Amino acid sequence: MIRVESLNDLWQARESLDEPVAIVPTMGFLHEGHLSLVRAAKKRATSVVVSIFVNPTQFNQETDLEVYPRDVERDLALLENEGVDLVWIPTNEVMYPPGFQTWVEVGEIANPLEGEKRPGHFKGVATVVSKLFTAVQPQIAFFGQKDAQQVAVIKQMTRDLNFPIEIVAVPIARENDGLAMSSRNVNLNPEERDASVVLYQALQAAKIAYDGGERNGDALRLLMKEIISAQPLASIDYMSCADPSNLQELEVIASEALISLAIYIGKTRLIDNLILEK
Amino acid sequence: MIRVESLNDLWQARESLDEPVAIVPTMGFLHEGHLSLVRAAKKRATSVVVSIFVNPTQFNQETDLEVYPRDVERDLALLENEGVDLVWIPTNEVMYPPGFQTWVEVGEIANPLEGEKRPGHFKGVATVVSKLFTAVQPQIAFFGQKDAQQVAVIKQMTRDLNFPIEIVAVPIARENDGLAMSSRNVNLNPEERDASVVLYQALQAAKIAYDGGERNGDALRLLMKEIISAQPLASIDYMSCADPSNLQELEVIASEALISLAIYIGKTRLIDNLILEK
Repeated sequence: MIRVESLNDLWQARESLDEPVAIVPTMGFLHEGHLSLVRAAKKRATSVVVSIFVNPTQFNQETDLEVYPRDVERDLALLENEGVDLVWIPTNEVMYPPGFQTWVEVGEIANPLEGEKRPGHFKGVATVVSKLFTAVQPQIAFFGQKDAQQVAVIKQMTRDLNFPIEIVAVPIARENDGLAMSSRNVNLNPEERDASVVLYQALQAAKIAYDGGERNGDALRLLMKEIISAQPLASIDYMSCADPSNLQELEVIASEALISLAIYIGKTRLIDNLILEK
Repeated sequence: MIRVESLNDLWQARESLDEPVAIVPTMGFLHEGHLSLVRAAKKRATSVVVSIFVNPTQFNQETDLEVYPRDVERDLALLENEGVDLVWIPTNEVMYPPGFQTWVEVGEIANPLEGEKRPGHFKGVATVVSKLFTAVQPQIAFFGQKDAQQVAVIKQMTRDLNFPIEIVAVPIARENDGLAMSSRNVNLNPEERDASVVLYQALQAAKIAYDGGERNGDALRLLMKEIISAQPLASIDYMSCADPSNLQELEVIASEALISLAIYIGKTRLIDNLILEK
């Protein structure tokens, strides 16, 4: 496994990779969710590149960036074990050198939900993912479905900017009790960890109601709200029942819906989602 | 010479090209200036791709877009004659399909001069050039030095977004009387055509003063203003004596300067520039 930091070293190493090349962009502190992306990439591509970069421009709160967990040596061991070909760990100076001033911005699909609650977040995401794509020139890229709006934004950006790259969303990896795996889970204390299962419980309750015939968006949002509100450590950032194609809230579900949540458990903000299919 | 319109046809044709691949982005209605870019590209690259696209998003005035001259059949004959390998002529729908919503924006270097006088112009330029770069994946790209700020903006964008592409600026091609070649020159009536030499005359006067020891920015701008003002058909949009590295106006020229002009001759807006070197 090759490990590089600079763009020139990346480009030199990239030349030695057999195509198709897959990229798995990460912010490090890898868990089973990331490894499921790597395994999906290994199945589809001849060479797999993993990037590890805690991208400062997508954090809208300084404190969130500061407490974001890191453990590069552990990450490298995990990736080596998965048979990854190339790991790119750029510094902030490599990604945002002095004088940096170019931004990629996606429109309407980046506005609601995470875009509304985390101003500037998707501008940072779209810019850094564009940079990863142009630098690595992969044929296929893997993202976790946990960040459902991020997947939608990146698909839109990929299409709009003509990247000849297939975007694959990999299903959410979950703990035994249903909590979606996230690097942020490590910031939960034991009591908060127990409480955090409420996100999955709320989504499951909505799914059961949907499977039972409920098609009213407000009814599903209210149902999730009641479940979250019953958990004293949880506070709601948003709850959504939206059209997956444009992320606009639905009054009535005609075909399918993305139900998604952002919930604070103590000071830790967690997100989760589920697709309701016809 | 292969001619393609759709992205899929482009990508299929791109695979058959031997690298290094050069791109020469144009808006068509080709003149000797464009052909000098093609010849420079032929010298440096194994395969040459020319794009022809009158990009609507970089026109800040509807009328300017409407009167922009076009003659694709003539362009194709000229490019065939130069030995171009691939011509990509996308439609507006190929470049900006329904739902398009992603923009590339460059910061400070895009703000003065053309950026100030043509709001949104460089947002359109940066976006479309990004799309050309991602779609064609060239190793080297050729632009005319006549659009000096455009070259600076694209170099900045290329560096900031990690495009592994060398940007080459080709010297301005001029008519016998010094007028910089431009597709817009065709919009000049004979009287205006005679008057349009005033841009080159103003730049030359500034260069003569500079070569004679003048280092004061205001003095050079005033000198150019006097020459332009003496031409009744000319009206000044801007006149600049700026630091080539950031396009900020200079009080005193320490090492080098970019002197540039945007002048209306009748209703036609012309630009020209010259580098003053140490």
